[in-house]
Amino acid sequence: MGSYAIIGTGAVGGYYGACLQRAGFPVHFLLRSDYEQVKQQGLTIESVYGDFTLPQVKAYNATSQMPPCDVVLVTLKTTQNYQLSELLPPLLHENSVIILLQNGLGFEAELAQSFPKHKILGGLAFICANKVGAGQIRHLDYQKIKFAEYAYQYAATGVTETLKQVGEDFKTAQIEIELGADLLLTRWEKLVWNIPYNGLSVVLDAKTNEIMANPWSRQLVEALMEEVVLGAKSSGRLLDDSLIQTMLDHTDKMTPYFTSMKLDYNGKRPLEVEGIVGNPLRFAHGLGVELPRIEMLYQQLKYLDYHNAVISH
Amino acid sequence: MGSYAIIGTGAVGGYYGACLQRAGFPVHFLLRSDYEQVKQQGLTIESVYGDFTLPQVKAYNATSQMPPCDVVLVTLKTTQNYQLSELLPPLLHENSVIILLQNGLGFEAELAQSFPKHKILGGLAFICANKVGAGQIRHLDYQKIKFAEYAYQYAATGVTETLKQVGEDFKTAQIEIELGADLLLTRWEKLVWNIPYNGLSVVLDAKTNEIMANPWSRQLVEALMEEVVLGAKSSGRLLDDSLIQTMLDHTDKMTPYFTSMKLDYNGKRPLEVEGIVGNPLRFAHGLGVELPRIEMLYQQLKYLDYHNAVISH
Repeated sequence: MGSYAIIGTGAVGGYYGACLQRAGFPVHFLLRSDYEQVKQQGLTIESVYGDFTLPQVKAYNATSQMPPCDVVLVTLKTTQNYQLSELLPPLLHENSVIILLQNGLGFEAELAQSFPKHKILGGLAFICANKVGAGQIRHLDYQKIKFAEYAYQYAATGVTETLKQVGEDFKTAQIEIELGADLLLTRWEKLVWNIPYNGLSVVLDAKTNEIMANPWSRQLVEALMEEVVLGAKSSGRLLDDSLIQTMLDHTDKMTPYFTSMKLDYNGKRPLEVEGIVGNPLRFAHGLGVELPRIEMLYQQLKYLDYHNAVISH
Repeated sequence: MGSYAIIGTGAVGGYYGACLQRAGFPVHFLLRSDYEQVKQQGLTIESVYGDFTLPQVKAYNATSQMPPCDVVLVTLKTTQNYQLSELLPPLLHENSVIILLQNGLGFEAELAQSFPKHKILGGLAFICANKVGAGQIRHLDYQKIKFAEYAYQYAATGVTETLKQVGEDFKTAQIEIELGADLLLTRWEKLVWNIPYNGLSVVLDAKTNEIMANPWSRQLVEALMEEVVLGAKSSGRLLDDSLIQTMLDHTDKMTPYFTSMKLDYNGKRPLEVEGIVGNPLRFAHGLGVELPRIEMLYQQLKYLDYHNAVISH
């Protein structure tokens, strides 16, 4: 496509942006706390796929300083999405594509209200990566992105030309990609994992392996997954019967870890509870389907998020 | 009735046993860790209703040393009930009455299998009291007991003669009492409070006032209470519509405190999760009624109880 803006240079944004720059694309990185250091020292990627360093990157601490780009890749936490209507305008030319590379549901629809003339894609990153210092990213495992295009009220678009073009760029940057024909289906699929594990890791103070090893929490994971499948069904998306078992098997084999929501909780940062739990719940509710366990998880997370913030401030 | 055995001289057993002895009844106290000190120094009750001391009490550290008694008052935590079939036989004569002064559901039916010839009562204590040292009990508020008699499969018995006789003894001991005509109804009623507050205080690490102040946890309390009402209905017990609102109002006005289950959790003691949550859940399930939020609470508490114990040993 051409030039890229990375909105939110944490582990995910830093890693993918660095891969794109390494492949020759012009990449502009928005930073906050790490701005000075990255401007001076660039980015260092310590990766299972091979370490590399970018001694010079185009670093910014305000989008007003950045040029319009062909692709705006949003890698902020969704708790920061309220800023997008102010952050994005300087970055957009007539044909700019916006990609929300984030977890959760419903943000493309919100964004489309603010930016109705732009193509919007959703991306789901399957990656284990942490920021270990300013401009220093450790990539531990996986790196696939699944992209799909948004259309009004999440109508399935099929694999569009825009998707194919973005996909080509990422392939050039040696990033494994998959193109989805139905963004809503793709988002519900990932929620089958994200809702139970992100939620329960916070409520039970548990790593993935601890949740899986205990028979009661494991049963609860399955019950929550079944409710996510019901939620997807409420909007006409039938998830494959084998998906739950595949995810359980996959999680059994994973290196034990704390989910991103648990890391946010431990770091006293706001939880992505609306995107990952609240929006799917309201989405299904709006279509007449109640999900009592997911609702209970939501209520528990809202309580814990509030008290986590209250205590920290 | 005559003589009393107190099985489990904690805050509840110690307080009521001391009231009975003060009124002139022969009372025999079973103790474990505090046995030596109570044998030497007796019991001290520091009470909002007036302090008093019993310099001498009949203290025992094994039921085999105790005489048969007319009433055996069981004030153990229900997690210890598995010991009752061995503890009780030395205490029973032909007409002994056994009272389970405990929270939760289902234990009278279990006990009746081991002791089919004895009358069994259930008692629910509405009291705020703590053990503050060996033989030292602080009574903070309330002291009412609601008694009802058990019959096979929790058939309602009405107010029986046995109930009236036990009630007279407690009245003589200046303990406020209420006699129930239907033990199962009485137990479900108290579960409307016990399930949400005991459960959520552990899962959310919260005092009663914190649970009430947050709109999401408050909603969850109400949803859980509604499921308890459904559980009661499964066995033909219709709880009054106003009960939920009454309990919410009452809790709003209470001095903030940690529930007994939360105190057990903090003290690394086993949680009464089967009696308070598991048994009611299975009871309703056996009658074809699913209670998804209570089931989720059960699964979460089982996880936390297991890890609490694992970490402490």
